[in-house]
Amino acid sequence: MKLTASAKLVYNFTGPTEVIGLIQASHSGDQTILSEELILSPDAALVEDEDVRGDRRFRTCLSTETSIVYTATVDNGMRSLLPRSGRQHLWNELPPEALAYLLPSRFCPSDSFQRFAQREFGSAGDGVSRVMSILEWIAAEVDYVAGVSTPESSAAHTFTVRAGVCRDFTHLGITFCRALSIPARAVSAYSLDVQPPDFHAVMEVYLENAWWLVDPTRLAPIEGIIRIAHGRDAADTAFLTTDKACTVVSQTVQVSRVDTAS
Amino acid sequence: MKLTASAKLVYNFTGPTEVIGLIQASHSGDQTILSEELILSPDAALVEDEDVRGDRRFRTCLSTETSIVYTATVDNGMRSLLPRSGRQHLWNELPPEALAYLLPSRFCPSDSFQRFAQREFGSAGDGVSRVMSILEWIAAEVDYVAGVSTPESSAAHTFTVRAGVCRDFTHLGITFCRALSIPARAVSAYSLDVQPPDFHAVMEVYLENAWWLVDPTRLAPIEGIIRIAHGRDAADTAFLTTDKACTVVSQTVQVSRVDTAS
Amino acid sequence: MKLTASAKLVYNFTGPTEVIGLIQASHSGDQTILSEELILSPDAALVEDEDVRGDRRFRTCLSTETSIVYTATVDNGMRSLLPRSGRQHLWNELPPEALAYLLPSRFCPSDSFQRFAQREFGSAGDGVSRVMSILEWIAAEVDYVAGVSTPESSAAHTFTVRAGVCRDFTHLGITFCRALSIPARAVSAYSLDVQPPDFHAVMEVYLENAWWLVDPTRLAPIEGIIRIAHGRDAADTAFLTTDKACTVVSQTVQVSRVDTAS
Amino acid sequence: MKLTASAKLVYNFTGPTEVIGLIQASHSGDQTILSEELILSPDAALVEDEDVRGDRRFRTCLSTETSIVYTATVDNGMRSLLPRSGRQHLWNELPPEALAYLLPSRFCPSDSFQRFAQREFGSAGDGVSRVMSILEWIAAEVDYVAGVSTPESSAAHTFTVRAGVCRDFTHLGITFCRALSIPARAVSAYSLDVQPPDFHAVMEVYLENAWWLVDPTRLAPIEGIIRIAHGRDAADTAFLTTDKACTVVSQTVQVSRVDTAS
Repeated sequence: MKLTASAKLVYNFTGPTEVIGLIQASHSGDQTILSEELILSPDAALVEDEDVRGDRRFRTCLSTETSIVYTATVDNGMRSLLPRSGRQHLWNELPPEALAYLLPSRFCPSDSFQRFAQREFGSAGDGVSRVMSILEWIAAEVDYVAGVSTPESSAAHTFTVRAGVCRDFTHLGITFCRALSIPARAVSAYSLDVQPPDFHAVMEVYLENAWWLVDPTRLAPIEGIIRIAHGRDAADTAFLTTDKACTVVSQTVQVSRVDTAS
Repeated sequence: MKLTASAKLVYNFTGPTEVIGLIQASHSGDQTILSEELILSPDAALVEDEDVRGDRRFRTCLSTETSIVYTATVDNGMRSLLPRSGRQHLWNELPPEALAYLLPSRFCPSDSFQRFAQREFGSAGDGVSRVMSILEWIAAEVDYVAGVSTPESSAAHTFTVRAGVCRDFTHLGITFCRALSIPARAVSAYSLDVQPPDFHAVMEVYLENAWWLVDPTRLAPIEGIIRIAHGRDAADTAFLTTDKACTVVSQTVQVSRVDTAS
Repeated sequence: MKLTASAKLVYNFTGPTEVIGLIQASHSGDQTILSEELILSPDAALVEDEDVRGDRRFRTCLSTETSIVYTATVDNGMRSLLPRSGRQHLWNELPPEALAYLLPSRFCPSDSFQRFAQREFGSAGDGVSRVMSILEWIAAEVDYVAGVSTPESSAAHTFTVRAGVCRDFTHLGITFCRALSIPARAVSAYSLDVQPPDFHAVMEVYLENAWWLVDPTRLAPIEGIIRIAHGRDAADTAFLTTDKACTVVSQTVQVSRVDTAS
Repeated sequence: MKLTASAKLVYNFTGPTEVIGLIQASHSGDQTILSEELILSPDAALVEDEDVRGDRRFRTCLSTETSIVYTATVDNGMRSLLPRSGRQHLWNELPPEALAYLLPSRFCPSDSFQRFAQREFGSAGDGVSRVMSILEWIAAEVDYVAGVSTPESSAAHTFTVRAGVCRDFTHLGITFCRALSIPARAVSAYSLDVQPPDFHAVMEVYLENAWWLVDPTRLAPIEGIIRIAHGRDAADTAFLTTDKACTVVSQTVQVSRVDTAS
């Protein structure tokens, strides 16, 4: 599927503020960037890096009201969907870079959930069945409601209050997977069908020698997702991380399908 | 300084248990391993990997009472101590691999501590001064007491109860540094002068283009430390991570100075 | 001082909702209600009770959009201010009804703060000095900021993030007092000088054989306060407690001084 | 059933320590104390009070190693068991003193559990059915394991880790009941069949115009329970509350049935 995405972030920075931006589509193997543009107004010097998976981060220092506009057209036709079945790996079969995604992180305290996860999902057949039963459980037991969680809320909070937004759903899914010894990580994304339009948070699981994207909110089709960045949880993939408080002037995100017939 | 360290871990595993072990001295640039030996009884197949910094991890599957014995003689004479002064970097000056250590993690929720850290330590002169004032604060305000914290305790708990053990002191130090935008990470270690003898937890800060080891407990001289592994916090550097509960039969750690005159 | 207070709460209840209301000025000994009126539209049957201290609670069941309007004129001239000095009681000197206010509660986990409170405030001279040093500390270390806390936030959260609103300031003050063995409780109030106008949360401490009102936010003069209800913390003194979610249509609170010259 | 209970607490107090003791059988209407004895060695002056329900508290100040020994023979034959059916009250039908037990407390944050409780237990028929389904759920989903929780653990922790001891089971039961608007409170007790013998924690629910004892651990028969004290949660009913740390020298609790034939 070909998709076009744009984000326009207007923020007010009062005094020099260190900024890390993660809003560019990833150069990952499962999508091709056909065109893109990143414009800061006023302009600012950027330090850019790209990790081994193709995620791109820019760093800068901003000190006044700034507009950050990113637009891209992306073909994600190479993305494979989670197969119907697939086995979970023993730890000694995993590639070393997957091991960190077995461990608890800021918003995914999987160390506290081993009894629950084992009891609730442990008996599902193979790895894919476990992940599917986790996604079923979340869809059945957690309400999608804004305003219940905060940026400090962890999966333990979501597990108790049984409500949250995409970020919370993703943290809960990651937490359960890790508690079952399935590597799981957070992925930030542009996505079709998110209402109101905004950045989206989904997750990836490692099964059958590969990472697979899944969306615990079931809001978006996997084919409608443009990957931005991956990490342990939302702390790693925030679209904007700053070293001091700043204020949002406006923020709009848009994603649409590119009509391939024309 | 030349040091010899040994750990003897006897654990009872009931049923096949996935295990990650982080008990070998690191092949990092600041220490040289003169000799070492790792013996599991009964023997078990190990998958071993080494990261870019030289930390070594073994993975295996154990299913009965097992003794894991590691001994090493290490020369850590190449380790530099935190200088008297040194500047904190702007984010865009940092090497990309340091950026993750600016972010909150499972036991170091630095996102919640920005106001406190800025108010308490923000006015100290340069980066080294800030780190020194953090270490002073911890020494003055937190009591070294066993039994107050659990393996689930985060730095927020230690900050409230004002007591804990080496792991808690380290998490608090890391949390404050990150809240001030100083990259900080956890380091597991063998160390002289820890009473009762056990694995030790210290931390590293990134200032003046380098990582520097510091010990928030002030129990051990930096020269008495043999580095094992580094990571975001104790979740990454646990000497043994398992996918299910196991029981400790016995555990002893010993570190001593090697008399170089003989 | 003579004060007039009014609250107009318009809420939408969808389906029968159990409601406890705590919005009427207390019949406590430190204030006299000169006139008052409570009107629900549409009207509803109320069950009313009054506790031994004069706090008044109404219970009802509401199932549609309802306006609750309360107005009162109150003379609080009998209220004594915290004296300059005064001793803290030994536990066996306290009246039995004060003992519950030594214990931790939902938002005031004083059991976790004994080390901190003892270290920070324990050396102040007498009981009043300890309370004064607590109030000084809060004024110096905590910022009054809306949006940082939620209705689920406890004093441990406020202690970490160092920001909050009147309810959070009060919970922190109560927590520190209890951690020092000074009975402390929450008081809901109408108050002059709260911006934006709203219900106010203050606290009381038991010293020298009496309860004394203090305001950790320092927003309002004690003479400008009309007491509504007291309890262990905000859970006990919520102006409206309901058994299911309802939505605020509008809410206004007004307090003004009655010109006694006219 | 006639029961005899004894507790021998030997504690070391270093320096004058304020103490509240709740270890005497209650003078409540559901049990008769046939004989009893409370001995402190060395002796100390006690201030004693009794609340309206018959719970008895002593206060004293201890400053050296002290043995507190209590023995009692109690007939609890007047205790009624939770009936097979019974309705939950509307809030405006409850006696005022029951209202506090609808609200969250230190270890029972019922405000965070409304969605879960409503979804999981809300559809059970009457009040008794709801309580029975809560007790079934706890028995099925939570493991009785020592060492997982601490004295600071709340029901939210137990809900996540799915393990704990009697106190945790009780806090979880109370939390769920309150989240469903059923008044619920903690009761400390001597009890038959607790292994290892210790004080026991159970709970009471208010249905059909009365309080009913239930035991979420299912360890003890209700007929084997001697009631000590009731309160919002374990903070209110601790057998010993002190204003500073003290150390346990030894602690033994024994409960046995009195053979009425002899």
